[in-house]
Amino acid sequence: MGGRLRLGMIGGGRGSQIGDSHRLAARLDDRYTLAAGALDIDPARGRDFALELGIAPERAYADWRAMVEGERSRPDPVDLVTIATPNASHHPIAKACLEAGIAVLCEKPLATSSRDALELCRIARQHGRIGAVMYGYTGYPLVRQARAMVRDGALGRIRVVRAEFAHGGHVTEIERDSPNAAWRYDPAIAGPSGVLADAGSHALHMIAWIIGQDVAEISAHFDRIVPGRRLEDNAFLTLRYEGGAVGTLWASSVALGHRHGLRWEIFGDRASLAWQQEHPNHLVHCLVGDSPRLIERDGPGTDPWSRRSGRVSGGHSEGYFVAFANLYRDLADAIVARRSGKEVDAATYGLPDLVDGAKGVKCIEAAVESAARDGAWVSARLPDWTQEGSEQ
Amino acid sequence: MGGRLRLGMIGGGRGSQIGDSHRLAARLDDRYTLAAGALDIDPARGRDFALELGIAPERAYADWRAMVEGERSRPDPVDLVTIATPNASHHPIAKACLEAGIAVLCEKPLATSSRDALELCRIARQHGRIGAVMYGYTGYPLVRQARAMVRDGALGRIRVVRAEFAHGGHVTEIERDSPNAAWRYDPAIAGPSGVLADAGSHALHMIAWIIGQDVAEISAHFDRIVPGRRLEDNAFLTLRYEGGAVGTLWASSVALGHRHGLRWEIFGDRASLAWQQEHPNHLVHCLVGDSPRLIERDGPGTDPWSRRSGRVSGGHSEGYFVAFANLYRDLADAIVARRSGKEVDAATYGLPDLVDGAKGVKCIEAAVESAARDGAWVSARLPDWTQEGSEQ
Amino acid sequence: MGGRLRLGMIGGGRGSQIGDSHRLAARLDDRYTLAAGALDIDPARGRDFALELGIAPERAYADWRAMVEGERSRPDPVDLVTIATPNASHHPIAKACLEAGIAVLCEKPLATSSRDALELCRIARQHGRIGAVMYGYTGYPLVRQARAMVRDGALGRIRVVRAEFAHGGHVTEIERDSPNAAWRYDPAIAGPSGVLADAGSHALHMIAWIIGQDVAEISAHFDRIVPGRRLEDNAFLTLRYEGGAVGTLWASSVALGHRHGLRWEIFGDRASLAWQQEHPNHLVHCLVGDSPRLIERDGPGTDPWSRRSGRVSGGHSEGYFVAFANLYRDLADAIVARRSGKEVDAATYGLPDLVDGAKGVKCIEAAVESAARDGAWVSARLPDWTQEGSEQ
Amino acid sequence: MGGRLRLGMIGGGRGSQIGDSHRLAARLDDRYTLAAGALDIDPARGRDFALELGIAPERAYADWRAMVEGERSRPDPVDLVTIATPNASHHPIAKACLEAGIAVLCEKPLATSSRDALELCRIARQHGRIGAVMYGYTGYPLVRQARAMVRDGALGRIRVVRAEFAHGGHVTEIERDSPNAAWRYDPAIAGPSGVLADAGSHALHMIAWIIGQDVAEISAHFDRIVPGRRLEDNAFLTLRYEGGAVGTLWASSVALGHRHGLRWEIFGDRASLAWQQEHPNHLVHCLVGDSPRLIERDGPGTDPWSRRSGRVSGGHSEGYFVAFANLYRDLADAIVARRSGKEVDAATYGLPDLVDGAKGVKCIEAAVESAARDGAWVSARLPDWTQEGSEQ
Repeated sequence: MGGRLRLGMIGGGRGSQIGDSHRLAARLDDRYTLAAGALDIDPARGRDFALELGIAPERAYADWRAMVEGERSRPDPVDLVTIATPNASHHPIAKACLEAGIAVLCEKPLATSSRDALELCRIARQHGRIGAVMYGYTGYPLVRQARAMVRDGALGRIRVVRAEFAHGGHVTEIERDSPNAAWRYDPAIAGPSGVLADAGSHALHMIAWIIGQDVAEISAHFDRIVPGRRLEDNAFLTLRYEGGAVGTLWASSVALGHRHGLRWEIFGDRASLAWQQEHPNHLVHCLVGDSPRLIERDGPGTDPWSRRSGRVSGGHSEGYFVAFANLYRDLADAIVARRSGKEVDAATYGLPDLVDGAKGVKCIEAAVESAARDGAWVSARLPDWTQEGSEQ
Repeated sequence: MGGRLRLGMIGGGRGSQIGDSHRLAARLDDRYTLAAGALDIDPARGRDFALELGIAPERAYADWRAMVEGERSRPDPVDLVTIATPNASHHPIAKACLEAGIAVLCEKPLATSSRDALELCRIARQHGRIGAVMYGYTGYPLVRQARAMVRDGALGRIRVVRAEFAHGGHVTEIERDSPNAAWRYDPAIAGPSGVLADAGSHALHMIAWIIGQDVAEISAHFDRIVPGRRLEDNAFLTLRYEGGAVGTLWASSVALGHRHGLRWEIFGDRASLAWQQEHPNHLVHCLVGDSPRLIERDGPGTDPWSRRSGRVSGGHSEGYFVAFANLYRDLADAIVARRSGKEVDAATYGLPDLVDGAKGVKCIEAAVESAARDGAWVSARLPDWTQEGSEQ
Repeated sequence: MGGRLRLGMIGGGRGSQIGDSHRLAARLDDRYTLAAGALDIDPARGRDFALELGIAPERAYADWRAMVEGERSRPDPVDLVTIATPNASHHPIAKACLEAGIAVLCEKPLATSSRDALELCRIARQHGRIGAVMYGYTGYPLVRQARAMVRDGALGRIRVVRAEFAHGGHVTEIERDSPNAAWRYDPAIAGPSGVLADAGSHALHMIAWIIGQDVAEISAHFDRIVPGRRLEDNAFLTLRYEGGAVGTLWASSVALGHRHGLRWEIFGDRASLAWQQEHPNHLVHCLVGDSPRLIERDGPGTDPWSRRSGRVSGGHSEGYFVAFANLYRDLADAIVARRSGKEVDAATYGLPDLVDGAKGVKCIEAAVESAARDGAWVSARLPDWTQEGSEQ
Repeated sequence: MGGRLRLGMIGGGRGSQIGDSHRLAARLDDRYTLAAGALDIDPARGRDFALELGIAPERAYADWRAMVEGERSRPDPVDLVTIATPNASHHPIAKACLEAGIAVLCEKPLATSSRDALELCRIARQHGRIGAVMYGYTGYPLVRQARAMVRDGALGRIRVVRAEFAHGGHVTEIERDSPNAAWRYDPAIAGPSGVLADAGSHALHMIAWIIGQDVAEISAHFDRIVPGRRLEDNAFLTLRYEGGAVGTLWASSVALGHRHGLRWEIFGDRASLAWQQEHPNHLVHCLVGDSPRLIERDGPGTDPWSRRSGRVSGGHSEGYFVAFANLYRDLADAIVARRSGKEVDAATYGLPDLVDGAKGVKCIEAAVESAARDGAWVSARLPDWTQEGSEQ
């Protein structure tokens, strides 16, 4: 494996669940050393935490600008920066990292506007940098299994998709007491969308990624169920895909009784699949004319990519951290391969890349516009961003 | 109980599953004798089958007109007529029965236009006849439990509902070989809607009936997935309810892997409920701040109405026929009570009545119109039909 | 079908759940008229209830002896008697009915000693009478599916079975207040076994009936968990079958959290099956080297016998009453065929017959003896009862 | 945390699943550095793999004796040795480590005789060493939740337990081609028991550990289902616990259709619990007189110990590696605390210690003896081993 890669992290300070998850996932396969960090918006707190995590004092930075500056001038800069800050800062941080020549793994949504997201795509392309977006649930072995099955034609033509990321975490006005919840409904930090950007974006991406079809048009209805919220806490989307599939997506934070709530069904003309994050080691599969079958992780006939994405034989429960770790492990492979001169990027390894991230942001924008126009169909297609001067 | 009631049946001939189900359900509690029938569009076949079922020859009618005429002129006419024909004939048959003074239990949808459906409401009202619509799944003990819980405030304010009746029975073009499937996509017989009218109408009614809120407005998207179909085989609806709830409904006959597919979730600000027809003896209940609980039929704390709607102690599986039988049993009670001079109708016993049926038809119309207008919001409110001359 | 059969019932009076279940099941397919009854140990109460059920006054008998006497002297005696009394009276009643030439459907256990049970077998054989035992759960379509699959070799050689009938209905000393529970722990009425005879006997029979192997030897451990009980409320059995299978059975009435608790798994060298009564419309099937499949009632590839045992297409939930009704319907066929001179008995139709009942009683005896001998292996084989003078 | 501990590993070479699992688990919380290893019975292969894992050449030992010798003479010996070899070598390795002053985490079963296991207990006690046994499934947050609930009296008096570890991994004679499977049925390596020692021992320990009652007596029946096996591949145990509970345990490797198969139910007189490893983030809980509740990991009212044993908020699936990691993390705490002079051992942290391991071995011995005596009850009580000269 040629030694560990150097990982930097921006955001994800003490008490940040997503920060812990990233670090744990990066550690799982022993491919990274946490080498640098600007972990907190409060510089002192961030530095303290960095030291505690074993980061050298000179690389425990006060803020992300200092970190990008510091790392770019070192002989041994970090190989990858994880961006685990709230939404609005993703774009400037990612931009700075990419321009500094550092690969980026950015939390979703990639930006708060598709214009910003596309700028990151262009920069990465121009500078030949690897960029990925942390749609971490795509790392689940059976989610990868689903993608492989669709790609191999096992489902036939995709007809209908049903996706949900509807949890019950915010059924009361918890943002009064929880800063961690509060920013998600603050347009200045979260961007123009609440629960759709926060949770639904995972489901939106996952379906498109599995079925290999981008969203073409969206009709959306948003509600702010809990009084006082400035962004939607419930969103119903109807979707038309480029390849002809139709579907719906439900994002909610008031789905009382759902602890997590990411789940989907995909219906083709040859077979269907169903999966849910809370029982991730099982995938229900039904062929036309047959009974439903329960595909188990690592089970008979599973795809090699899916099997490799597990760490222990089937039947042993694997969870969220393994999913996240798969993105880190594959990204390590991509970075090492790129360094050795191979023309690879995140997508080569089946990872969600910056273009996926931009599409996700575009979908959010389209949904926001549709909801404002009482559900009118709005295009979610990205403009042609690959040409010079193709700014929107 | 004062002897058995006399039941007549129109439609539901040999090989008709719904006909068998009605007869079995009517027999379950020994409250009815099958006394008359016009069971088939083919008179000879219908008479043969009627005789085989033990109907007296003079009451084995050639067609429904003969039956209504014959029964109205008897000293012992049938007390109730079940209408189990395809959609387009519901209205003329029900109208004739009601005008002949016979109570009616009509399959859904009540009619193929809301104008027709409302006419039936007016006739029943004017003539003081009992009319009910066979939303038979409302007879499940735990569906009644759900209604009782909402009515008692156990869920608080209803925020979001999610309903589905999405089966996989028509994933291929089975209508080529199956007359039973074919008429459901033929506008001349089915009316203006396919799977929404056929399956979705149950879910539409059930949610409104449980939460005690009518649908106010609908935004709908229809697809004809299997080539050659003239009516939709997949429908996505977004719903706004009179009491402020929002929701979605999915009706489909191409949901491969779903054998039946009627299921729903209801989210209030105090509690949520979830149920599915394929496992009807369990209801998932979650209070704010608590873990999900599994309410079992006849289990601790269940509502007396729900408990009475079962026939054996909890744990013993009960199914579809018991649900249907509950409507027949309650309707028998209503007919007997009315005869004894009480001012009761189907709704008194918690049964879906003709107005429920008309609302269902109105929802279908609104969805059809919305789908034709690319998802525009369309009102599903009934006009004021109770006034003289209130024809639309 | 040649008219309805005349059904008599002994026991199953007002408030008896099993009585209601039998009557409902007998009515489901319209094959029987309830013509006679001795429904209650209290003659007046029994007669009142019989009249209420529509039985003619002269056939509303004061006790079972009067009924057998009365019916045998009529020109139109009942065709079948259902025996739904507590265990200890099964033998004398069944004996009298069989000797009077009346077919018998007896609740389980068939008797409180195998000697008595075998006497019934001999009488039925000598007099050419049809006798069946109400192992009613064998009527579930997917239980029949399992039997058909084993018979067809789909499971290969049966290796291991796991059966349970463990409910939580008696976790407290409810027999203080519930006569319906009390007799089940009273040796004078229940016989030598409590929950094993009461619940476990169903599971014991079902497994043997499905796998086509009788129990050869039993090692049993009984406990009286709730203080004061005179018969076991928890029983663990280890089983060796004639055909080489090994297995266990757990019977309990203190399995808190189980509402019903009948379930099993059967493991062959080619495939396995698993089923539970609380979700009876699904059967889990796993072939060697494959993923588990969910066989649904009436689903793809199901056995014709299983499909015929349902009343409505798959996906519609069916329950306990349909299972019971299958025994009544098949028994009607058997009685009619016998009357027309065919050499048939209950087993011809796949129904549990008196020999099955005797085997069940023998298993209970063996378990009681084993438990008394601290789990020593005890033979559960029936003696050769078919010879003259073969009384034990 | 005061820096990472130094971890040594014996066994767990390339291709060893359990070796990978241990290393991954040890890494998860960043508390250990893998510092030394004798990873393979083939010295060269073991050294190569050790180097690949980043172990310094001088600590990539040829065999375990060299490793114990080498480490005890270093100024910076390993703090903990993980023993991941087949069963028969556990005792000599653990003995050598403990005598060398090194804490031990040993795979189960701790030894192949209780005499050997107790010797390890005595040595650890005499030398004041920390020893733990890798009953890794006890690290699952909801297994810990169960233990906490029993300890707090939430279940009342434990009446009945049902445990299984029955998988379908060896339904065919896979040991012909799989060395990894073969040794498990070889008495020279596995000891006197096959699947009971291999899989069942987890379930045996887990129940005792949760309910706080040791096994008093065992009645066992063993079968060798797949021809040619020298040790049982199916075991049925009936159990009597010191505190009065009774139960059963089923261990099998021919349970076709079970991918993993560890699951249990515990019934008290106040409440019951049920759990299964394949869906480890849910625990079914039923109070007397109430409906079943689904306790989710990190859910409302869960025990602090259970909550701390997760790494991310409830709803996110966690699996096997987190369970294992909990043992490593807690053991790190124990080692650090001991070093600082605190009188702690593994049990202080709720970890399975060497005495638990010895009890497990004793249970296996008792079961083997009982099975040889046709199911006679055999005591599973440990002798008093704490006295001088208390060798059996």
